[in-house]
Amino acid sequence: MNAAQIAALIENPPPQYHPRPQGWDDDDQVRDECGVFGVMGHPEAAALIYLGLYSLQHRGQEGAGIVCAEEGILSAHRGMGLVSDVFRPHKLARVKGTHGIGHVRYSTFGSNNLKNVQPLVVDYARGSMAVGHNGNLVNAGILREQLEESGAIFQSTTDSEVIVHRISRSQSETFTDCVIDALREVIGAYSILVMNGEEIVAARDPYGFRPLWLGKLDGCYVIASETCALDIIDAERVREIEPGEVVTINRNGIVSSQNPFEKKVPKQCIFEYIYVSRPDSDIFGASVDEVRKRMGRELAKLAPVEADVVMAVPDSSNPAALGYSHESGIPFDMGIIRNHYVGRTFIEPEQGIRDFGVKIKLNPSRTAIKDKRIVLVDDSIVRGTTARKIVKLLRNHGAKEIHFRVSSPEIINSCHYGIDTSNPSRLIAHNMTVEEIRDYLGVDSLAYLPIDALVSATGSPPEHFCLGCFNNKYPTQIPSDFSFRTPKNRHVDHSTELLGQ
Amino acid sequence: MNAAQIAALIENPPPQYHPRPQGWDDDDQVRDECGVFGVMGHPEAAALIYLGLYSLQHRGQEGAGIVCAEEGILSAHRGMGLVSDVFRPHKLARVKGTHGIGHVRYSTFGSNNLKNVQPLVVDYARGSMAVGHNGNLVNAGILREQLEESGAIFQSTTDSEVIVHRISRSQSETFTDCVIDALREVIGAYSILVMNGEEIVAARDPYGFRPLWLGKLDGCYVIASETCALDIIDAERVREIEPGEVVTINRNGIVSSQNPFEKKVPKQCIFEYIYVSRPDSDIFGASVDEVRKRMGRELAKLAPVEADVVMAVPDSSNPAALGYSHESGIPFDMGIIRNHYVGRTFIEPEQGIRDFGVKIKLNPSRTAIKDKRIVLVDDSIVRGTTARKIVKLLRNHGAKEIHFRVSSPEIINSCHYGIDTSNPSRLIAHNMTVEEIRDYLGVDSLAYLPIDALVSATGSPPEHFCLGCFNNKYPTQIPSDFSFRTPKNRHVDHSTELLGQ
Amino acid sequence: MNAAQIAALIENPPPQYHPRPQGWDDDDQVRDECGVFGVMGHPEAAALIYLGLYSLQHRGQEGAGIVCAEEGILSAHRGMGLVSDVFRPHKLARVKGTHGIGHVRYSTFGSNNLKNVQPLVVDYARGSMAVGHNGNLVNAGILREQLEESGAIFQSTTDSEVIVHRISRSQSETFTDCVIDALREVIGAYSILVMNGEEIVAARDPYGFRPLWLGKLDGCYVIASETCALDIIDAERVREIEPGEVVTINRNGIVSSQNPFEKKVPKQCIFEYIYVSRPDSDIFGASVDEVRKRMGRELAKLAPVEADVVMAVPDSSNPAALGYSHESGIPFDMGIIRNHYVGRTFIEPEQGIRDFGVKIKLNPSRTAIKDKRIVLVDDSIVRGTTARKIVKLLRNHGAKEIHFRVSSPEIINSCHYGIDTSNPSRLIAHNMTVEEIRDYLGVDSLAYLPIDALVSATGSPPEHFCLGCFNNKYPTQIPSDFSFRTPKNRHVDHSTELLGQ
Amino acid sequence: MNAAQIAALIENPPPQYHPRPQGWDDDDQVRDECGVFGVMGHPEAAALIYLGLYSLQHRGQEGAGIVCAEEGILSAHRGMGLVSDVFRPHKLARVKGTHGIGHVRYSTFGSNNLKNVQPLVVDYARGSMAVGHNGNLVNAGILREQLEESGAIFQSTTDSEVIVHRISRSQSETFTDCVIDALREVIGAYSILVMNGEEIVAARDPYGFRPLWLGKLDGCYVIASETCALDIIDAERVREIEPGEVVTINRNGIVSSQNPFEKKVPKQCIFEYIYVSRPDSDIFGASVDEVRKRMGRELAKLAPVEADVVMAVPDSSNPAALGYSHESGIPFDMGIIRNHYVGRTFIEPEQGIRDFGVKIKLNPSRTAIKDKRIVLVDDSIVRGTTARKIVKLLRNHGAKEIHFRVSSPEIINSCHYGIDTSNPSRLIAHNMTVEEIRDYLGVDSLAYLPIDALVSATGSPPEHFCLGCFNNKYPTQIPSDFSFRTPKNRHVDHSTELLGQ
Repeated sequence: MNAAQIAALIENPPPQYHPRPQGWDDDDQVRDECGVFGVMGHPEAAALIYLGLYSLQHRGQEGAGIVCAEEGILSAHRGMGLVSDVFRPHKLARVKGTHGIGHVRYSTFGSNNLKNVQPLVVDYARGSMAVGHNGNLVNAGILREQLEESGAIFQSTTDSEVIVHRISRSQSETFTDCVIDALREVIGAYSILVMNGEEIVAARDPYGFRPLWLGKLDGCYVIASETCALDIIDAERVREIEPGEVVTINRNGIVSSQNPFEKKVPKQCIFEYIYVSRPDSDIFGASVDEVRKRMGRELAKLAPVEADVVMAVPDSSNPAALGYSHESGIPFDMGIIRNHYVGRTFIEPEQGIRDFGVKIKLNPSRTAIKDKRIVLVDDSIVRGTTARKIVKLLRNHGAKEIHFRVSSPEIINSCHYGIDTSNPSRLIAHNMTVEEIRDYLGVDSLAYLPIDALVSATGSPPEHFCLGCFNNKYPTQIPSDFSFRTPKNRHVDHSTELLGQ
Repeated sequence: MNAAQIAALIENPPPQYHPRPQGWDDDDQVRDECGVFGVMGHPEAAALIYLGLYSLQHRGQEGAGIVCAEEGILSAHRGMGLVSDVFRPHKLARVKGTHGIGHVRYSTFGSNNLKNVQPLVVDYARGSMAVGHNGNLVNAGILREQLEESGAIFQSTTDSEVIVHRISRSQSETFTDCVIDALREVIGAYSILVMNGEEIVAARDPYGFRPLWLGKLDGCYVIASETCALDIIDAERVREIEPGEVVTINRNGIVSSQNPFEKKVPKQCIFEYIYVSRPDSDIFGASVDEVRKRMGRELAKLAPVEADVVMAVPDSSNPAALGYSHESGIPFDMGIIRNHYVGRTFIEPEQGIRDFGVKIKLNPSRTAIKDKRIVLVDDSIVRGTTARKIVKLLRNHGAKEIHFRVSSPEIINSCHYGIDTSNPSRLIAHNMTVEEIRDYLGVDSLAYLPIDALVSATGSPPEHFCLGCFNNKYPTQIPSDFSFRTPKNRHVDHSTELLGQ
Repeated sequence: MNAAQIAALIENPPPQYHPRPQGWDDDDQVRDECGVFGVMGHPEAAALIYLGLYSLQHRGQEGAGIVCAEEGILSAHRGMGLVSDVFRPHKLARVKGTHGIGHVRYSTFGSNNLKNVQPLVVDYARGSMAVGHNGNLVNAGILREQLEESGAIFQSTTDSEVIVHRISRSQSETFTDCVIDALREVIGAYSILVMNGEEIVAARDPYGFRPLWLGKLDGCYVIASETCALDIIDAERVREIEPGEVVTINRNGIVSSQNPFEKKVPKQCIFEYIYVSRPDSDIFGASVDEVRKRMGRELAKLAPVEADVVMAVPDSSNPAALGYSHESGIPFDMGIIRNHYVGRTFIEPEQGIRDFGVKIKLNPSRTAIKDKRIVLVDDSIVRGTTARKIVKLLRNHGAKEIHFRVSSPEIINSCHYGIDTSNPSRLIAHNMTVEEIRDYLGVDSLAYLPIDALVSATGSPPEHFCLGCFNNKYPTQIPSDFSFRTPKNRHVDHSTELLGQ
Repeated sequence: MNAAQIAALIENPPPQYHPRPQGWDDDDQVRDECGVFGVMGHPEAAALIYLGLYSLQHRGQEGAGIVCAEEGILSAHRGMGLVSDVFRPHKLARVKGTHGIGHVRYSTFGSNNLKNVQPLVVDYARGSMAVGHNGNLVNAGILREQLEESGAIFQSTTDSEVIVHRISRSQSETFTDCVIDALREVIGAYSILVMNGEEIVAARDPYGFRPLWLGKLDGCYVIASETCALDIIDAERVREIEPGEVVTINRNGIVSSQNPFEKKVPKQCIFEYIYVSRPDSDIFGASVDEVRKRMGRELAKLAPVEADVVMAVPDSSNPAALGYSHESGIPFDMGIIRNHYVGRTFIEPEQGIRDFGVKIKLNPSRTAIKDKRIVLVDDSIVRGTTARKIVKLLRNHGAKEIHFRVSSPEIINSCHYGIDTSNPSRLIAHNMTVEEIRDYLGVDSLAYLPIDALVSATGSPPEHFCLGCFNNKYPTQIPSDFSFRTPKNRHVDHSTELLGQ
C-alpha cells in the first residue's frame, strides 16, 4: 500500500450503511429499491412509522421520510441518510398526527438529493396528499411527457411524481377512485401508499412485483413492505395485500378492498427471495430464510463437491450457505468476518485501491482458510469483481481449493421493476460463459442454481414469478416499447445533500 | 431578573442576523421582502451572485439560493439562513455555469422552511426554469385556485409558484413571451428574474413597486435589486429597469427590452426610501442616504424643539437623525450602542422577558443620557412596543426630556406589495391619536413627518409613490377585492429547517 | 408496546458502535479496554495509525486519538467517537510527521469526555511527550496521591496520567530510562506506547496481561495491540513483544530491547481469547479464531446434548458455536440475525423497555427456531439479563428446547487489569449456582466450560494465564491492598462530549 | 475583481465576530485580551455567568468557558467561538452549581485551540480548582521553566497554567493564602478569578493594569471585568476592586479583603479607555464613552481644521469623532456604514485581495462623501494598512479633502501586559515620522492626540497610567530582563478547533 492509496482511502472511506460488505463495489451488487410503512388511527403514528422504517432500512439507505396528518393537516419531515440519522428525536416530534406513511429510499447516484426523498407531499385542489412508492414504473417517461405537454411542472426526477400529478387531475369523486384513475394507465411495479388528511390508500400492482402486508396493532391497521416491520412493533400479521388489490383505510377501519384492474397472473419478483427481503420476513407466502436455505440445499444436490468447509459471502448469503452445509454435511465455517465498525463517514475508495477495500470490510481468519477445500456460497453474481477479490483474498490466506456456488441463476438482463442490476453490458453472465466466469474468478469449480430449482425452492408455481433478469421474459412492455422523445434536460438540486456534506 | 427569565433568555437568544436591533419585537417592525441578483455570461457567475446576495442580505435573512446554468443544465443550491452560512465554499462550488440568478428571502414564520426558499426550480415541457421574485402578488390566491382546479399540484406556499405554473402553461413561442403571458394577469408587485438554460428574463411590474437595476461587469450584464450589489463587485451602473419593462438577456447581450403591459403611472414603494434599502444604494433616481437625511432635515424644520442632543434608534434611523442634527444644529450623539456580538444561535426571547431583550441588544451610555434633553429619531413606528422600551431605557438612565421624532408618517394600514407591517389592528397609529401615542410612549413630545414633506424629501413627484400604508390609497385592487373560496389546508414540511435545528 | 416505551426508545436508540449486539445491556457484558498502535519512520505515519486504529476499533469505541512528531514537534488530534468519525480527512491531515502513536479508548460512563481521550500529550522540562496505554494500573490511586501531595496537578481522571508525571519527574538520562523509572513502581497491566520528538518506547508489563505486537512495513517498525492491525496495512508480523520487555525505536531501527523489570511467569489475560481480541488476530502464540473453536469443541465433548441445531449469540460467540457444531455434528444455524443498520445516533433504551431493545438489535428467524431443540452457545455470561431475554425471544418464536452452553467458566470476580466486568455483586455466577442460573435463564440445560478445558483449548500451559475472574487468584496485589485515603472530588469537564451532543 | 480574487474571498470570508470592521487586517489592530466574570451563591449561577460573558464578548471572541461548583464538585464547559455558540442551552444546563467563574478569551493564532480556553480546571491534592485570568504575566517563561525543572507537566501554553501549578504547590493553610503565595512572585498584569468547591478568590495585580469590578445581585456578590457585565443582569455596582487587592468570597458574603502585596502607584492601562472597554462601561473611575468624547474634544482643540463633516472609522472611533464634532461644530456624518451581515463562516481574505475586504465590511455612502472636506477620526493606528485603504475608499468616492485625526498618541512600542499590538517593527509610528505617515496614508493632514492631552481627558493623574506603548516606560521588568533559556518545543493540539472545522 503506497501513500496515494492511503490518502485516497482516508478521503473516501467505505459507508456505514452499506447493506452488505460484499458489495463494496458500486457496480457489483443488486440494489434494493425502497420500502413503505403506513399506520392509521394510532396516537403514536410517527413513532410507529419510525420503527417500521428502521426495520425496513435494508430496502433503502439513501433517504427517509415520514408524513403524518393531524386534523387534516399533513406535516412532513424528510432527509438524506439512515432512518436513525434523519429522525433525531426533535425532528420526529414535529411530525404530528394519528395516521401517516413513511418511506426509505434507494436511488442511483445522480438523483442523490433531498427533492427525490419520499413521501412526496403536495397541495392540490382538494387539499394535500402524500405518496410513498416501492417499485419502478415502466412507462413513467411517456406519462411525464404527456403531463408536461399539458403544462405540468416537475420538481423531482422520481417516476412517482407522475402518479401525484395524475391523482391531482382525476375528476373522480372519492380519493380512492382518483388513485385508481391515476394507476390505471401506469405500467410497472408498485406497492404504493397514498394518503390525504382523512385516508390511506394502499395499492399493489396487478402483477404484485413487490411485497405489501397488512397488519393490526392495538386495533389500528398498519401496512408494511415486509413482515419484519410488523414484528418489530408487535403487530399482528393480517394478510398480504393481493396483487391488483386497492385497500382504503379510514379511521373506522377498512372501508373498501377492491380489485379495480384487469386480473393478471402474479409475477412476483424472485429477487425478493434471493437477496432483497430480510431473512426473518415472510413474503409471497413463505419464509425468506427458509426459502434461501432450500436454495442452498438444492444447490448442494445439483452441484455437490468434496470439500472441508462451506463458507458464505457475508452476510446475505449465510442462509444459502447454511442450507448447502446442512444438505451436504460439510461443516459450515466463518472464514471471512464482516467488520461492523465502519462509521458514518467512511465512503467508497477510488477504483485504484478497491482491492484494499476488501480488507477494510472483510477480515479473513487465517486458520479457518489455510489448507482448506472451501465451498464458497454467494447469493448472486452481478459483475463478478467483488467475488473475484474475495477469491483472491482466500487464496492469499492459503485456501487449497475454492468451489464457488451461486444460489441463483446467471443474471443476464436488467430488471425494469425496481431492482438495480445495472446495465446488461456490465453483467458478467451477459458476457461470459460459466466456464469463462470460473476462469475469471479463479476458482476450481463454479455452479449456479438453475431456474427450475430456484423456483422449486420457493414452493410456489413458476408462473407466479417474474424471472426476467434470468430469462429475458418480462411480464409487461418495457421502456424500449414506448416511443419517447429525448427527455429535456433535468435540473440538479444540491440543496441539503448527504448528511454532513 | 428572575430564574425563569434567565432560562427563557438562554433558550431563546436574539438572532445574529436580525436586520436592526430596534426590532427585537417580532411584531414591531417593518419587514424586508427579498432581494434578487442575476448575471449572464461570466465564468464566475455563482461567485458573483454570492457576493451580490451578500450585499442584499438586509432584504432577507431567512434563506438564500443560487441557480446557475452550464450547457443548458440548471444546478441549484438553496438553504435556510444567511448567505454566508448557506453557501460554504464546497456548496457554492457545486453550482456551476456562466449565467444564473440568486435570491435572499424573508418570510413570515409559518413558512419558514426549505421548500419556500427561492429561486424555485422546476422541470417542464421545454426543459428547466428557475424563478426569483421580490414583491407580493395581490391575486395569487385566486390564480392558484384556478390552477389547482385544472389539476396543478403545488409544493411551496409562495405566491411565486403561481408564476412558474403560468409560464409552463403558456403556448407562446419564445421564453420571454411565455414569461410575459404568465405576468399579464398577475396583479401586484414584482421585480422578478426568470431563467432557463439559455436566457435570463428580468421584469418589473408596471407600477415599479420594487427597485431593479441593470449593471455591467467585464462586458457581462448583471441585474440587482439595489446598486449596493453592483458596487460590491465593481460593476458599472447602467440604469434602473423601468416600471413595466421586460428585459431579456442572452449570451450576446441584451436582445430585447420591451414594455408589453399597459402603461401606468409609477407607484414606487416609499418604504424602500424610509427603511428597506441600504443607505449606500441609489434607487428610484436618488441616494437613499441623502433622501433619509432630507427627511430628517424636514422633520427638524417642521417639528423643532429645544434640546441637548439628537439620538437615533440604531442603526436604520441614523441618517434621519443626522439630518435632524444638521438642520437644527443640535449635536448628534450615540447614547444607545448596538451590540454586534449576537452570535448565530441567539433567538427571540419570549413575550414575558422582552424588556430584558433590549439590554441584550442595546447598550445605553449613562453619561450620554443623564440629565440630557434628547431628540430621539426613529424612521418609523409600527406597534410602538419597542419604542416604548427604548424610551423607558433612556428614562432609567436619567434622560431629562425625550422628544420623539419619526421620519415618516403614521402607518395606518397594511402593505399588500411586499412589506410586512403586520395586521392593521396591531398598528399603533391605526388605533391611537398622536397624543395617545405620545402618552403611550411616555415622551415629552412626539411628531411624525407629514406625507407631503416625506415626498418632498425624495425629490420625485408625489404621484410616483405608493403611499397606501399612510393614506389607504392602493394603486391596484387588493386581496379583499377577489372572491376567493376558503383555501384548502396546506401541508407543512419540516425538512431541513433553520440551520442546526 | 405503549406510547411511553416508544418515546423512550426514540429518545434513546441503541448505538451504532456497540461492539456486540448481545450486550445491549450496559451492565451485562464484558467491556474491552483500549488498543494502541505506533509507527516509526514512515512518511504516511498518521494515515497508517488511522488504519491500525480502525482495525482495533473493537477494543474501544468511545474515543480515539493520534499524535505524530514532525521535526521534533508533536501534533495531536483526539475526539469522542469512532475512529472514522473523529478523523475526518481534514482533521487527519493536520497531524503531521513521520512517527507517532494512536489509541482507541473504552471507559466507564462518568469519564466519557475529551480530557480522558488518549494519547495524553504534555509539555515538560525536556520537551513534549505522548502516552497511549492499554491496561489498568492497580496502584494508580496511591501513586496519584503521592504525586498530588508533592504539588502535581491533574487534568484527566485516567490512571495513565500518573505515568506521565512519573516520567516527567525522572532524573535519568535517556528517555527510555525515564520511562522505565516511571514504570518500575507501577503495579498492574500495561501495554504502553510512549513517544517524544525522537523516539517511541513500547513496554509490556512483566505479566504480559495485554497483547502487544511488533511488525515491519516498508522497512519501518510498527507496533500494535493485535495482529489484525498489522494485517490491514500489509505489515510483516515480526514477533510479540515479551512480557516485561521494553523496546525503544528510533529512526535507525530498534536501538534497544531490554527486560529491566523483575522476571515473572506470564499471566496473560485469558479473556483476550474468550471475547476481547478479534478472531482473525493471533495473540499469545495462537489464532484467536482457532482457540475459540477449540473451546466450542471442548464444550461439545464435556456437555453434549441431543439437539437439532447449534446457534450462537451473535457475533462474538460464532467461533465457539461453530466448534460445538463441528464436534457434535449438530448443524449450525443462524436463528438470530444481527441488525447492522443501527445508525450513529441510536443509543441505549431505558431500563423499562429493555426487552424491546432485543428486537431492535436481533432479528429472530421463525422458521429456523420453531419446534427446534436448540443448543445456544454464548462466550460468557456476566449478569445474565441479556441471555435471559434472548432465551425468551427464542421461546416466543417456538423453540422446543434450549440448551445453553457457555464457552468459558463462571465469572465470579472482577478483573483489576483492564476488563470491565462490573461489580462482583452484579455477576450472576457470584450469586447463584449453575442450577439457579439455569432456572433464571429459563433453559432446559446449562453448562459452562471448566477452567482446565478452557486453558487446554489455548494450547498454552495453565500457569501462563491470569484466571482471576474465574478463580479469584490475582497475580498481583489488588487495589484493596493499598491504604488509600478517600480521594478528593474530581471535576467534571463537559467540553466536547459525544459527537453531536 | 478577477476570478482568483473571488474564489479566495469565498474560501476565506470575513468573520462574524470580528470586534471592529476597521481591523479586517490581522496585523493592523489592537487586540483585546480576555474578560472574566464570577458569581457566588446564586441558584442560577451558570446563566448569570453566561449573560455576563455575553456582555464581555468584545474582550475576547476566540473561546469561552464556564465552571461552576455544586456541593463541592466543579463542572466545566469550554469551547471555541462566541459565547452564544459555545453555550447552546443543553450545554449550559450541564454546568451546575451556585457559584462559578467564566472567561472569554482572545489569543494569538498559533494557540487557537481548546486546551488553552479558560477557565483552566485541574484536580490537585486539596480537590479541584479553576482559574480565569485577564492580563499577561511578564515572567511566566522563567516561572514555567522552574516548575518544569522540578517535574511539572504542562497541557496548555497559557501563562495562566503557571499560576495553577504554583497554587497547587503552596503549603499555606487557606485557599486564599495559597493564591497569594502563587501570585507573590508573579510579575505582570492580572485581574484573576480563582475558585474551588467553596470559595472564589478575586485578585488584581498591584499596578491594576486591567479593570475588575465588584457588584451585588439579589444579595449575592458578582465580579466582572467591566460594569457593562453588571448592568446586563441589573446588578448593583459596589466598587472597583483596588490594585493589589485580594478579595475572598464565600457563601456568607465577603470574608476578607486584603492587600498582601507591596503597595504600588497604580499603572492602569490607558488603552482600556482608548479602545478595549465597552463605551457604556465605567472603569478606573470614569465613563469610557465620556473619556473618549473628551479625547475627541481635545483633538479638535489641538488639531483644528476647516472641513464639511466629521466621520469616524466605525465603530470604536464613534465617541471620539462625536467629541471632535461637538467641539469644532463641524457636523458629524456617517459616510462609511459597517456591514453587520457577516455570518459565522466568513473568514479573513488572503493578502492579495485585502483591498476587496474593505468593501465587504464597509459600505461607503457616495452622497455623504462626494466633494466633501472630511475629518476622519480613528482611535488609534497600528500598522496603518487599514487606515490607508479607508482613505483610498473615500478618495474613490469623491472626497475633496481628508484630514486624519487620531484620538491617541503614536504607538511606538509593544505592550507586555495583555494588549496585542504586534511586534514594534510592524508599528507604523515606530518606523515613520508623522509626516511620513501622512504621506503613506495619502491624507491632506494628520494629527495625533499628544500624551498629556490624552491623560488630561481621563480626569486621572498621569502617574496612574501605564503609557508604555507610547513612551516606552514600563512599570515592571519586561520579558527581556529575564535570563531564559530557549524554551523546549511545545506540542500542538488540533482537538476541537474552531467550531465547524
